[in-house]
Amino acid sequence: MDTRSTHFLVELWEIERERLDSVPDVRRALLEAARHAGVTVLHSAFHKFNPHGVSGVVVIAESHISIHTWPEAGYAAADIFTCGDRAMPERAAEYLPEAFDAGHVELTKLTRGIRQVASQPRQAKNVA
Amino acid sequence: MDTRSTHFLVELWEIERERLDSVPDVRRALLEAARHAGVTVLHSAFHKFNPHGVSGVVVIAESHISIHTWPEAGYAAADIFTCGDRAMPERAAEYLPEAFDAGHVELTKLTRGIRQVASQPRQAKNVA
Repeated sequence: MDTRSTHFLVELWEIERERLDSVPDVRRALLEAARHAGVTVLHSAFHKFNPHGVSGVVVIAESHISIHTWPEAGYAAADIFTCGDRAMPERAAEYLPEAFDAGHVELTKLTRGIRQVASQPRQAKNVA
Repeated sequence: MDTRSTHFLVELWEIERERLDSVPDVRRALLEAARHAGVTVLHSAFHKFNPHGVSGVVVIAESHISIHTWPEAGYAAADIFTCGDRAMPERAAEYLPEAFDAGHVELTKLTRGIRQVASQPRQAKNVA
């Protein structure tokens, strides 16, 4: 059983305030990102904060895609977490900056689910 | 406007298979983790996979808490993502291994939302 999965952290900057404060725009971007990644959407939830900001989470058969926005700073933090060989999370990671027309992007790709096994304690050698 | 937020990646290993395959158990653990972190739950979604595995996401006013489980490997990948000064994500990160009675845990704490500003291009000095 392979527990490895791919987790992209996507920091999106220099985005027009209005794009980040609209639930329909954010929902469209996340669902379209899921489509680009070739994943299966099971459930989605979006929340509009007062006075500004949107949170969105899409639960997919392959894990999740999420976003949290700070419209007043032109910033959004997205995560694309997928397991399995068939998902193409890099395509979603490429699509999101385009969807929001972000001026600056920082992308980090992590592999989750790699078991770190403790090394065996060394035994002192007997000196003959 | 402070865009910084705290993102804990929690890798949980050596967990009893049954605990990871039960939506009620996983839901209880995530909602209780939210309570420990002192955050406000807005929405939650849980999905049971066939033949095994559970995904759960809790959207909170401070961002999200998520988990994906691999019961057959005794493994779960959790994320605790919170913004603001009042959340205590480290308490949720401490609670989750306890909730699942995990034999081995790997914890990573990230700070999201730190803008990397490109340095100014240096101008060659005029030599007099």
